[in-house]
Amino acid sequence: MTSILVLNGPNLNLLGQRQPEVYGTTTLADIEAACATYAKASGLSVTCAQSNHEGALIDAIHAAKGVHDGIILNAGAYTHSSIALMDAIASVELPVVELHLSNIHARESFRHKSYIAPVAIGQICGFGADGYLLALDALKAHLDRSTA
Amino acid sequence: MTSILVLNGPNLNLLGQRQPEVYGTTTLADIEAACATYAKASGLSVTCAQSNHEGALIDAIHAAKGVHDGIILNAGAYTHSSIALMDAIASVELPVVELHLSNIHARESFRHKSYIAPVAIGQICGFGADGYLLALDALKAHLDRSTA
Amino acid sequence: MTSILVLNGPNLNLLGQRQPEVYGTTTLADIEAACATYAKASGLSVTCAQSNHEGALIDAIHAAKGVHDGIILNAGAYTHSSIALMDAIASVELPVVELHLSNIHARESFRHKSYIAPVAIGQICGFGADGYLLALDALKAHLDRSTA
Amino acid sequence: MTSILVLNGPNLNLLGQRQPEVYGTTTLADIEAACATYAKASGLSVTCAQSNHEGALIDAIHAAKGVHDGIILNAGAYTHSSIALMDAIASVELPVVELHLSNIHARESFRHKSYIAPVAIGQICGFGADGYLLALDALKAHLDRSTA
Amino acid sequence: MTSILVLNGPNLNLLGQRQPEVYGTTTLADIEAACATYAKASGLSVTCAQSNHEGALIDAIHAAKGVHDGIILNAGAYTHSSIALMDAIASVELPVVELHLSNIHARESFRHKSYIAPVAIGQICGFGADGYLLALDALKAHLDRSTA
Amino acid sequence: MTSILVLNGPNLNLLGQRQPEVYGTTTLADIEAACATYAKASGLSVTCAQSNHEGALIDAIHAAKGVHDGIILNAGAYTHSSIALMDAIASVELPVVELHLSNIHARESFRHKSYIAPVAIGQICGFGADGYLLALDALKAHLDRSTA
Amino acid sequence: MTSILVLNGPNLNLLGQRQPEVYGTTTLADIEAACATYAKASGLSVTCAQSNHEGALIDAIHAAKGVHDGIILNAGAYTHSSIALMDAIASVELPVVELHLSNIHARESFRHKSYIAPVAIGQICGFGADGYLLALDALKAHLDRSTA
Amino acid sequence: MTSILVLNGPNLNLLGQRQPEVYGTTTLADIEAACATYAKASGLSVTCAQSNHEGALIDAIHAAKGVHDGIILNAGAYTHSSIALMDAIASVELPVVELHLSNIHARESFRHKSYIAPVAIGQICGFGADGYLLALDALKAHLDRSTA
Amino acid sequence: MTSILVLNGPNLNLLGQRQPEVYGTTTLADIEAACATYAKASGLSVTCAQSNHEGALIDAIHAAKGVHDGIILNAGAYTHSSIALMDAIASVELPVVELHLSNIHARESFRHKSYIAPVAIGQICGFGADGYLLALDALKAHLDRSTA
Amino acid sequence: MTSILVLNGPNLNLLGQRQPEVYGTTTLADIEAACATYAKASGLSVTCAQSNHEGALIDAIHAAKGVHDGIILNAGAYTHSSIALMDAIASVELPVVELHLSNIHARESFRHKSYIAPVAIGQICGFGADGYLLALDALKAHLDRSTA
Amino acid sequence: MTSILVLNGPNLNLLGQRQPEVYGTTTLADIEAACATYAKASGLSVTCAQSNHEGALIDAIHAAKGVHDGIILNAGAYTHSSIALMDAIASVELPVVELHLSNIHARESFRHKSYIAPVAIGQICGFGADGYLLALDALKAHLDRSTA
Amino acid sequence: MTSILVLNGPNLNLLGQRQPEVYGTTTLADIEAACATYAKASGLSVTCAQSNHEGALIDAIHAAKGVHDGIILNAGAYTHSSIALMDAIASVELPVVELHLSNIHARESFRHKSYIAPVAIGQICGFGADGYLLALDALKAHLDRSTA
Repeated sequence: MTSILVLNGPNLNLLGQRQPEVYGTTTLADIEAACATYAKASGLSVTCAQSNHEGALIDAIHAAKGVHDGIILNAGAYTHSSIALMDAIASVELPVVELHLSNIHARESFRHKSYIAPVAIGQICGFGADGYLLALDALKAHLDRSTA
Repeated sequence: MTSILVLNGPNLNLLGQRQPEVYGTTTLADIEAACATYAKASGLSVTCAQSNHEGALIDAIHAAKGVHDGIILNAGAYTHSSIALMDAIASVELPVVELHLSNIHARESFRHKSYIAPVAIGQICGFGADGYLLALDALKAHLDRSTA
Repeated sequence: MTSILVLNGPNLNLLGQRQPEVYGTTTLADIEAACATYAKASGLSVTCAQSNHEGALIDAIHAAKGVHDGIILNAGAYTHSSIALMDAIASVELPVVELHLSNIHARESFRHKSYIAPVAIGQICGFGADGYLLALDALKAHLDRSTA
Repeated sequence: MTSILVLNGPNLNLLGQRQPEVYGTTTLADIEAACATYAKASGLSVTCAQSNHEGALIDAIHAAKGVHDGIILNAGAYTHSSIALMDAIASVELPVVELHLSNIHARESFRHKSYIAPVAIGQICGFGADGYLLALDALKAHLDRSTA
Repeated sequence: MTSILVLNGPNLNLLGQRQPEVYGTTTLADIEAACATYAKASGLSVTCAQSNHEGALIDAIHAAKGVHDGIILNAGAYTHSSIALMDAIASVELPVVELHLSNIHARESFRHKSYIAPVAIGQICGFGADGYLLALDALKAHLDRSTA
Repeated sequence: MTSILVLNGPNLNLLGQRQPEVYGTTTLADIEAACATYAKASGLSVTCAQSNHEGALIDAIHAAKGVHDGIILNAGAYTHSSIALMDAIASVELPVVELHLSNIHARESFRHKSYIAPVAIGQICGFGADGYLLALDALKAHLDRSTA
Repeated sequence: MTSILVLNGPNLNLLGQRQPEVYGTTTLADIEAACATYAKASGLSVTCAQSNHEGALIDAIHAAKGVHDGIILNAGAYTHSSIALMDAIASVELPVVELHLSNIHARESFRHKSYIAPVAIGQICGFGADGYLLALDALKAHLDRSTA
Repeated sequence: MTSILVLNGPNLNLLGQRQPEVYGTTTLADIEAACATYAKASGLSVTCAQSNHEGALIDAIHAAKGVHDGIILNAGAYTHSSIALMDAIASVELPVVELHLSNIHARESFRHKSYIAPVAIGQICGFGADGYLLALDALKAHLDRSTA
Repeated sequence: MTSILVLNGPNLNLLGQRQPEVYGTTTLADIEAACATYAKASGLSVTCAQSNHEGALIDAIHAAKGVHDGIILNAGAYTHSSIALMDAIASVELPVVELHLSNIHARESFRHKSYIAPVAIGQICGFGADGYLLALDALKAHLDRSTA
Repeated sequence: MTSILVLNGPNLNLLGQRQPEVYGTTTLADIEAACATYAKASGLSVTCAQSNHEGALIDAIHAAKGVHDGIILNAGAYTHSSIALMDAIASVELPVVELHLSNIHARESFRHKSYIAPVAIGQICGFGADGYLLALDALKAHLDRSTA
Repeated sequence: MTSILVLNGPNLNLLGQRQPEVYGTTTLADIEAACATYAKASGLSVTCAQSNHEGALIDAIHAAKGVHDGIILNAGAYTHSSIALMDAIASVELPVVELHLSNIHARESFRHKSYIAPVAIGQICGFGADGYLLALDALKAHLDRSTA
Repeated sequence: MTSILVLNGPNLNLLGQRQPEVYGTTTLADIEAACATYAKASGLSVTCAQSNHEGALIDAIHAAKGVHDGIILNAGAYTHSSIALMDAIASVELPVVELHLSNIHARESFRHKSYIAPVAIGQICGFGADGYLLALDALKAHLDRSTA
């Protein structure tokens, strides 16, 4: 069974409590549950993880190699500054879908830059919690095609 | 029935013929047919249009007001330079999903900037023809929630 | 009789419907009617045109040569990017008054730049529909002086 | 009776003597006389002042509060560097029309930037001495509408 | 017989009337006639077209595929801003010679940048109407070598 | 009793040992003791923490919610690059006073930028260990006023 | 007795009247009275001055030499542009505390730059009128230590 | 007799007291006396003035017209920011020699820019008080040649 | 015996698995073994450590003080963004040799900048695993000279 | 007889040996022979020279004055940095055609800038060795017209 | 026997006399002697050359082709500006080790940029005269591996 | 006797022939003769040299050490790009007066930057051939003071 890691970065553990006008009221637990339900229906295995530590996210990406078939990564604020995360993704050679809850291109200019993008297959942003399900669809289609 | 305009910009008429290593071999007709099939299944009405003329795209966005409930816009190269398209979207006050076949953030730096983003609900890029169906899902979810 | 072309660019056809907090509720038809009335009283002939197409605006400027004595140009968003419009004005050697409904210098920084300015006699912005009448006055005074 | 302050900044006292190919041969006294005549005809009261001192211009703006209903401000070279003038205008909350004799957007690039613009209702530039009368019209229309 | 499209962009229809100190007094008709004569002598077929519309230029480039063997493109002011034209050329995979009447690198800095250059085989600028004949020579040599 | 978290970032554990000509000879323990004494006298409860890990600082800010009434944050070098810390502060919606031992605006230009500032109530820098007591005063006054 | 000059720059005379959402409702007279009271209690002598003229502020700084032991300087908008004020402070070699009512680092980017900072001992901003008392504390501590 | 105005700007009144390692120990009175002695020997009339007020320097330049034949201007820190001084010099059309005691091009980068330079005949910097005598020589030679 | 810490940063644990065309096939264990062998032969004591966590690298640098005589630091991607690492090195005042496997100056421009360089004695890059032995030589020579 | 100097700059002596995928396999001797043959047929006299020394190229340009009627200059890498070459061309007032083998505008961005362009009549690039013959044509036409 | 060219650029002939606090007291002759000794022991042939002329350095690199197996290049100040040197190295296709006595990344920012780096195998800087021996080791290891 | 080297850089050998509206009609021989006469009268020994080769200028500066007491350097266009010349001056530790015939700060922006300035005692520009005599005076005064 295709296995997908849903990896969330800094401050996403506060989802639902934090600036709801920007990020909505859904909690991270809600999202992870929705992913599980959706994955089950799609015949996917989903594992979820979150950390506020850049190093822990790198460790998790490293650990995904040989265990998962792809990663949905919402790297939060590290998206805009972490060359180390970019290198981690390049190292493990797994397909990554870059995800953001808000439309980062409609916010402060320092949020427009992504160090994840050059090593991701694509980016989905602005659709709130729905984005995770869209990302599962996108990654599944990508993996189905690669293994076809 | 919810009605969606799928609007494609410059050079997208050549899809399938043009740089297949970047854009894939699917033609615009294939994509429009896939959208129609997918829409039918989802209970949506979909109208497709394409132009190489910035002015014609603006005209089409204006004409969408009162006719369609939302727009999926792949503005192609105009994405990166057209303030006029940005203003057109702001004028008609319809929800717009910004779409790109390729991962624009992984290409030349002048393709990272989007004038559509500040007036779109979200952006999907890098998933090739699949992106249109993801965009239909995203827009449908958005519209369902707005009218709920 | 002195003849003036009042030429409006992209999205100005939606005036009154579009972002009224920025542009007011007056429609383009209202403005054109006001110009006609005002022109009549001032002994001017006024012709009005609008297009969302950059090329059509260039064509209109070319066509003005030998027909009109001056142009009031609200190039909308093309103001900020169109070197072609700048060249068109330089080509026809007619006096042009650059007009904007909103105070472009108080908005996003990409609206501060004007490619029209270097080839216009002056700029009027921020006075809404009143600006057109001020521009007629300014252009009339300029033409009266030139032909004196 | 509506009262308007016409405030001129550095070097404008030399008008008519200074670089006539840029600024024309009209003197400041001529302009002030023309404003007085025009104001009288329009039922406005006009007060004129000029200083080469940034601080004196700030003092004059402060003093205008409660005395005048609006300001026509030609801040000359201070336009491009004076955040203090910007703050002064914001402090007194009077409507200000920004005026320049020459078309500042067609000159050196350091003259394109205006710190007055973000706190002014609009800008008129390039029409020489005529600009003052256009500004009176613009400000009068603005005030008439505000008090209607 | 080798067939070449000579495609001219915005404002080039005014050649000979427009800023003769920059562009010379030769008209576009003169240039097209000279191209025809020169082509005949060289055993080439030449087709000429001009438009002020960016979209029409894109359409013309698309239509050239399978009809012409190469393009001489003077994109005028669109040279400096049109990513869409760059993409159009990349799409049709025809050899393009970039041409400018004036020496764009000796003019305003915004005319130094070319979006055509990355997809053209070479650039010729500064030689006025002579440039078209040089371009025909250059393109013919390129095509002769490719098909040798 | 009002409770305040005094949170110190990277390298501040070495205070007193490190570059004393820039940071003085007082140790972090000295500072924390001084804060405790000062707080006691002011009727405040103070908790102190330090980490060299960006993620641990984010965790600490998250944990402060519902426990402390405000934060004095010396984020050290993370001040200049951490969007994640900025987001953490925005998430917990506690008042934060930004503190620096040295006058960061008088040092290398990359130390002038602060990602903490946009989400802090104010900044105190350059007063060495004294700054912590000034910050306690500033935060106490802010909290007293808010709860008055 | 230690003597301190509290020097305020442009527009600060309007405090309490001007943009109260940014600067609060306290007047400059209130602040000067609070400083006097606070100074008395601390055994300090305080002299207050304000001017909208950059030159007058320079004169005041020059005059402080040999009369006062330190300066609290809120240079207002001149903070961001006045190299002359920076040089004046460097000339008199008195300790200066830079003060701002608002958090300048959370406002427009042109307010982030300070020419005062490189010649000040420290900066306090964002605490409104409280900042003056914090600055008196900071300067007193600095002077006590210097003369110890 | 040829008459020259030696005009000094902000902080130059403190010469000799201020940062002697940068500016030397000579006072402004010493310099003015040396200029007088040197001028006498050269058959020149010299008038000296100094102000810390930008507006007063502008006034002095205006007043020089018709009174003096040339100006030696050390505008101090205003050199780097004052477009108004530049305009004042352009207005009076007197030859100006730009002078600096220190080598401004070897100091902080914001001191490299001069708004005086574009309207001065030349610049002398880095020679301390000697510079004034060099400037008198340079201006005298210039005036002798102009009137020859 | 001279003791050296060989400290490796993010993603270097994957050496040999990761992008071998850039970094070669040698693993980190191979490198650490080679360092040990080489050190033994040179009469040096070598300790090796690696972490993906910026905070852990800072902790390790702090812990090196008083334990090791110098550090060979390959900070990986943190090289380009970590002011905190720069400060950590400055704090412990140990000689540091900056090392990179690849020639960072021949890669993406964001890899050209090093925050380690200003506090390192020198930089070696581009020689793959050989670089570590070169660095041991360089550091040994530096230490021998310092203690001579 | 019209005499033309064909002057080649740094590294062009290695033509044919160096990066043939960029510059082709033709040697400099081949090119010089082709120029000679072509010139003979056109009734021109051609002299060829090459140097890797910027100073020698300047000397050659100086020496061309009064000897040659025009110059074809391929300044190689000095094109992008040599203000001295620009000044040399301006000094001798001979018409210069700027030539490049490769399309410099399609390569690294530092090759887009030309200091030759502002003093050349035009630029030809991207046509390999053919460019020299095109340049001879262009220069001949220019000289014929000038002397007509 | 493997043959290596040690090529030194501008001002390196003054080594030992020049700014010893930056570059040390060793002379170029000392370094060349040390290289010879070291090379002998390593079974290498070393040739040394130095010039202050950019053109002479290019000539030397050209001449190295077919004579030497690799180059150690300390291009001095030409490192930061010479595209011609970069092209020369690319032309001869010999492995080059870039060397600097000082840590160029810790000095003025214009010394951080290297045009040698993109065509060198690696860079060694900051180790003074030791660097040449490190570079010999590095180049030898590289050549041994290539020819293995 | 004090000995001074007057060193002129690229294109200055053409003085009097080249762009006389910028540089005047005096030849380099005239200037050197004037320097000799002036020096004789001042009890100075003057040696003059000129080269178009950057390397030759560096050689000349090196050779000046121990032979001359100071240098007047007009480095022409190399002023704006030559770090190697800057390093040469720093190496020989002789006082250098930087000279330019034209006012470089009033010309193209790339002529405003000087790499000579940071290592020169001062700069004189804009006074044509007179500048050399002013420079002799300035250097003599500097040397007299140093040796007093």
